[in-house]
Amino acid sequence: MSALEKEVASSTDESGRRQSQRAAVPLPVGSSFEGKMLHRLLGVVGNPPIEFVLWTGERITTHPAPSATVRIADRATLLGLAKDPHIRFGDAYSEGRITIDGDLVKFVELMYRAAPEQPRAVRSLSSLLKGGHRRQRNTLTGSRDNIHHHYDIGNDFYSLWLGDTMAYTCAYYPTPDATLDEAQRAKFDHVCRKMRLRAGETVAEAGFGWGGLSMHMARHYGVKVRAFNISKEQVAYARARAKREGLDSQIEFVEDDYRNISGKFDAFVSVGMLEHVGVENYATLGGVAHKALGGGSNGRGLIHSIGRNRPAPLHPWITKRIFPGAYPPSIGEFMRIFEPWDFSVLDVENIRLHYARTLIHWMELFDANAEKVRKMFDEKFERMWRLYLAGSIAGFTTGSLQLFQVVFATKDNNNVPWTREHLYNGA
Amino acid sequence: MSALEKEVASSTDESGRRQSQRAAVPLPVGSSFEGKMLHRLLGVVGNPPIEFVLWTGERITTHPAPSATVRIADRATLLGLAKDPHIRFGDAYSEGRITIDGDLVKFVELMYRAAPEQPRAVRSLSSLLKGGHRRQRNTLTGSRDNIHHHYDIGNDFYSLWLGDTMAYTCAYYPTPDATLDEAQRAKFDHVCRKMRLRAGETVAEAGFGWGGLSMHMARHYGVKVRAFNISKEQVAYARARAKREGLDSQIEFVEDDYRNISGKFDAFVSVGMLEHVGVENYATLGGVAHKALGGGSNGRGLIHSIGRNRPAPLHPWITKRIFPGAYPPSIGEFMRIFEPWDFSVLDVENIRLHYARTLIHWMELFDANAEKVRKMFDEKFERMWRLYLAGSIAGFTTGSLQLFQVVFATKDNNNVPWTREHLYNGA
Repeated sequence: MSALEKEVASSTDESGRRQSQRAAVPLPVGSSFEGKMLHRLLGVVGNPPIEFVLWTGERITTHPAPSATVRIADRATLLGLAKDPHIRFGDAYSEGRITIDGDLVKFVELMYRAAPEQPRAVRSLSSLLKGGHRRQRNTLTGSRDNIHHHYDIGNDFYSLWLGDTMAYTCAYYPTPDATLDEAQRAKFDHVCRKMRLRAGETVAEAGFGWGGLSMHMARHYGVKVRAFNISKEQVAYARARAKREGLDSQIEFVEDDYRNISGKFDAFVSVGMLEHVGVENYATLGGVAHKALGGGSNGRGLIHSIGRNRPAPLHPWITKRIFPGAYPPSIGEFMRIFEPWDFSVLDVENIRLHYARTLIHWMELFDANAEKVRKMFDEKFERMWRLYLAGSIAGFTTGSLQLFQVVFATKDNNNVPWTREHLYNGA
Repeated sequence: MSALEKEVASSTDESGRRQSQRAAVPLPVGSSFEGKMLHRLLGVVGNPPIEFVLWTGERITTHPAPSATVRIADRATLLGLAKDPHIRFGDAYSEGRITIDGDLVKFVELMYRAAPEQPRAVRSLSSLLKGGHRRQRNTLTGSRDNIHHHYDIGNDFYSLWLGDTMAYTCAYYPTPDATLDEAQRAKFDHVCRKMRLRAGETVAEAGFGWGGLSMHMARHYGVKVRAFNISKEQVAYARARAKREGLDSQIEFVEDDYRNISGKFDAFVSVGMLEHVGVENYATLGGVAHKALGGGSNGRGLIHSIGRNRPAPLHPWITKRIFPGAYPPSIGEFMRIFEPWDFSVLDVENIRLHYARTLIHWMELFDANAEKVRKMFDEKFERMWRLYLAGSIAGFTTGSLQLFQVVFATKDNNNVPWTREHLYNGA
């Protein structure tokens, strides 16, 4: 039990005695019990330049000039925060019992930038929690539960802030001033160019979201697409939209797991699904791609995913409340898809700052539609979702999160682009 | 002991009895003892479409229409080949006791393409060899021995076939018809653009060869370079050339190991050294880069190396005769440089076909200067070196070898290029 947890345990002791108050060392500010608790907490998270303001009006900080203010509404919130900061912060923020003065993104950036170099320290604190969090395994049924949790909460909700393409993955901004819709279409194009799709070819897509990329490939590159997804709501949306846009003869949207992809294809693509696959299934995913490409001497593909500089778990609040079972890999882990199958990795591009931009655009639309979101769900949901979007922006601007696009080819494929100039100059 | 080795053992038995001849199964061709031995050998290497012709005139193949002919001069050569094919083939070829009718590169390509999918099968045969090969560890002194073996055999020799730049690494051909010198200079430029070097910046270079990249960076990008190399001959050449070309005030060529790089720099670059580092030292190399960049928020670098689709040892003949201690990593292994230091990998480009082209250009120059090479060394050396060049071409054309350029940045560096368009469209 850590010193911090001992303190919490003693404070919640029915006897009411606060043994920690026996400590004789004076603290510069926040010398109350609550102050000492928050001091310790600030130390654990690397002493970010923030201050806490308690319900009593007391101000607590370890920094001479704090840049952000966190208001804590009551004693129960504080005790929860001390006991399980990584989960309780987000929950209390969602409930409105924690509020932030000023810019939420800047606040999370301060937190990320201060975080200790060795994430193991933070992890060991979290692992001390009794029981921990339910493991959300990506088995065939586990994946269905995990995907249902996030993606089936309503097409109407996502329509409020994803823009016209309904693409829920990092966009690609050819120039920083592109609009969200332009950047999402440019992303589709960037992916198609990287795979050098030609009319008449066939493409397998693993995890198609609301079908934006499938429809772009069919419309602009003349390919036939067989696309797999286990989100019921997304499949229904994509089928209806493809029919409306006259693309249904070129696209087969299959409601099934990527592990059940069958058939032979010229290319294999997956944008924004890998985060939900789990490292333990990467060799299986590679095998699915290998079988789909049939070992052909022209086979190639692309996998696009959030990633990390080095292996680290996703923030526990995100995996608990937002994305159960999610995990963004390091490139080393990413390679476990390809190496067992002798795939040749041709190109890895990291466009993390484009995801920050994408998320800023999403958040602008989300904020503009905040009242509708509250009506669809409630204020707690709206606050939870805003924290998730703000935290994600901060993750990408501070380099805690990366975005990798990996182009690969079958081992014997010598029909690979001579240089990457074709991505930037012409067809 | 394998069946093949038993056969060899019994044939060399002083009693002269050939127990294997008791086998009643008739073989289609090559039914002699030698024929059976070579049949087994062909099976082990995946039955490539080749035929052997013995000193007796006997022709042995497992293929209906072989595409290449291997001539074996005498019985001792055959027995050596059966016992340790991976080493003895190259040695006997060097000695002229094995010759190939027709194109040497095409022959090696046939061998690579036929090789069994699971390289483990081939490795286990090799591991049966008594004693195996001396492990050539890349300790500080081990590296000196290993590098001396290859790079100190004479600047005059390398001058015959490396072209004007003396770059002994994969070139970059903007178009396939570029000349070797153009492509080597384009490679220098590609590397500099990837690092976005600016006048007045400082660069640390690990393993500088004959100094071509250092001089290009100094001349065309106005940077100051501190470059490290442990090949005495190369250091002497680079110092003299930099002085002759008036670049010595901008470049410090240090004769020392990359592990002793000191100082703070804006960028860290290493082209063609990683092959000699050894996976066990990758975290150390990353630490050297991390220290050199000083955790600065503008730090970035590039490492260029031969690689693999998946972990596999280099051909044992190459590590024994050509490159002691060498090992080309998979991307997964490559990441062991970066992940411990939280480096952000921005870009990985695979240009393996450019290395095939580079090697073809080297081999043309080598062949044009064959007589000079024989005078400098002897015919055995000339044949050995030609096999190494031809085998390397085949390695890259068949996808057995890859060439990776990896661009990385310090974790907090947000001054990263918005897209990669600057590499293709102006500065």
